[in-house]
Amino acid sequence: MNRQQLRAAIVAKKSFLCVGLDTDITKLPEHLLETEDPVFEFNKAIIDATKDYTVSYKINTAFYEAMGVKGWISLEKTLNYIPKDIFTIADAKRGDIGNTADQYAKTFFHTYPFDSVTVAPYMGHDSVTPFLKYEGKWAIVLGLTSNAGSADFQQQPFKDGKLYEAVLQTVASWGTPENTMFVIGATRIEYLERVRQLIPDHFLLVPGVGAQGGDLQTVAKVAMNNDCGLLVNVSRGVIYAGSGTDFAAAAHDAAKAYQEEMAGLLQPIL
Amino acid sequence: MNRQQLRAAIVAKKSFLCVGLDTDITKLPEHLLETEDPVFEFNKAIIDATKDYTVSYKINTAFYEAMGVKGWISLEKTLNYIPKDIFTIADAKRGDIGNTADQYAKTFFHTYPFDSVTVAPYMGHDSVTPFLKYEGKWAIVLGLTSNAGSADFQQQPFKDGKLYEAVLQTVASWGTPENTMFVIGATRIEYLERVRQLIPDHFLLVPGVGAQGGDLQTVAKVAMNNDCGLLVNVSRGVIYAGSGTDFAAAAHDAAKAYQEEMAGLLQPIL
Repeated sequence: MNRQQLRAAIVAKKSFLCVGLDTDITKLPEHLLETEDPVFEFNKAIIDATKDYTVSYKINTAFYEAMGVKGWISLEKTLNYIPKDIFTIADAKRGDIGNTADQYAKTFFHTYPFDSVTVAPYMGHDSVTPFLKYEGKWAIVLGLTSNAGSADFQQQPFKDGKLYEAVLQTVASWGTPENTMFVIGATRIEYLERVRQLIPDHFLLVPGVGAQGGDLQTVAKVAMNNDCGLLVNVSRGVIYAGSGTDFAAAAHDAAKAYQEEMAGLLQPIL
Repeated sequence: MNRQQLRAAIVAKKSFLCVGLDTDITKLPEHLLETEDPVFEFNKAIIDATKDYTVSYKINTAFYEAMGVKGWISLEKTLNYIPKDIFTIADAKRGDIGNTADQYAKTFFHTYPFDSVTVAPYMGHDSVTPFLKYEGKWAIVLGLTSNAGSADFQQQPFKDGKLYEAVLQTVASWGTPENTMFVIGATRIEYLERVRQLIPDHFLLVPGVGAQGGDLQTVAKVAMNNDCGLLVNVSRGVIYAGSGTDFAAAAHDAAKAYQEEMAGLLQPIL
């Protein structure tokens, strides 16, 4: 999916919500555990309940990998089940030397045809550029993450700024706003402001709204650009909104509430 | 496998060779392609041919992931086939927030019972520490990699040193030399010297010898410690030493040559 199509989806649905399918087999409603593929059954119900309110689904591969081959089968079925007009993210945070990065790009753009994959920047350009060669596909590179550990390196002095600032500027120079996005945590407003000074045009994948404490209104006010430029991810706040047989209805209501708030925030660009 | 057992294996085999199973289906000898699982058949023959000369096998997960479910089946069969007294490395370069890192640790220490997994440091402590909770298991954290891109961030000024120096010191403080190793490319001797000033005790996983141009003698001279403290990885130089029906014999000879050179270099600690 290219940028124009993504913008069109955002405008059509009046939403920049990304639902994170961090589906943990130990947290599923009990009645699903008797099915052949509980993870897929859960995801299917969540997708049915939320697809009208979300422009993106993010599959956190770790939860599937931990289940071995069964998990990869659930992942593939889930990916195939997502409507084709919804942007898909393999949240895999891969990063390795060129010939290995080629294999990861093949994994998440070809074997499993996601629109995008999250990528770690530590190993530099040859670990990122293999993901930029696929038409209509995206690398979503870690910039400033929302976890406590982002203070260990990302927020520390690097050259004449901070490490995350150098990562944004340097990685942005390897690609374009048509094939590169960044993961930017919503935990501190002054960082969001600084990110938009450095990379005004790029789309940002923003975790940390909801369970991790970020505020949607603030994120939109500070970081929205003319193409919206935001995918705000909510995982637990949607998929585990309920825990019983009504889990899908609860997820529906949670996603709808986010979409309605987002519709108001999108007014300036509609 | 704990450090004492790893040291004992190094002493017994007079080797600190790690063979990298970066098995690429497009590079396999033609006669294997007719078998049901060419990747496993290749790995099995390589393991049979090299197991007396190596103390470790490193499986580069990307090459397996790119094949989807079939690849994970080949990976599992390969892991099971490796003799239990040989140290196994999942070269997966994972790194994510705590609850996700927990899932990756489960993946590579439980679902697929490797001895160790490579981990990216960019997201900080909560992305690394979940790998340090497993008795006898190891996190092998990216320090200074051997690729061109290591110049983009790792070798640049960070606080009062370079980024890779801070990564080594900071990550070392989260664990111990009994559960943490570092990936250190062998491309420049002055960096190896600096690494040993900062972390004299840790084991280093050293890629870049052979195909990437590092020199085994220099690495041993500069970076060996009293427990050896080195696992030198060779991938292509062993597994693709031959390309015909005699590929296993060629791999045997290549691994044996490395082992014989290493036996000499290990003399000071035997």
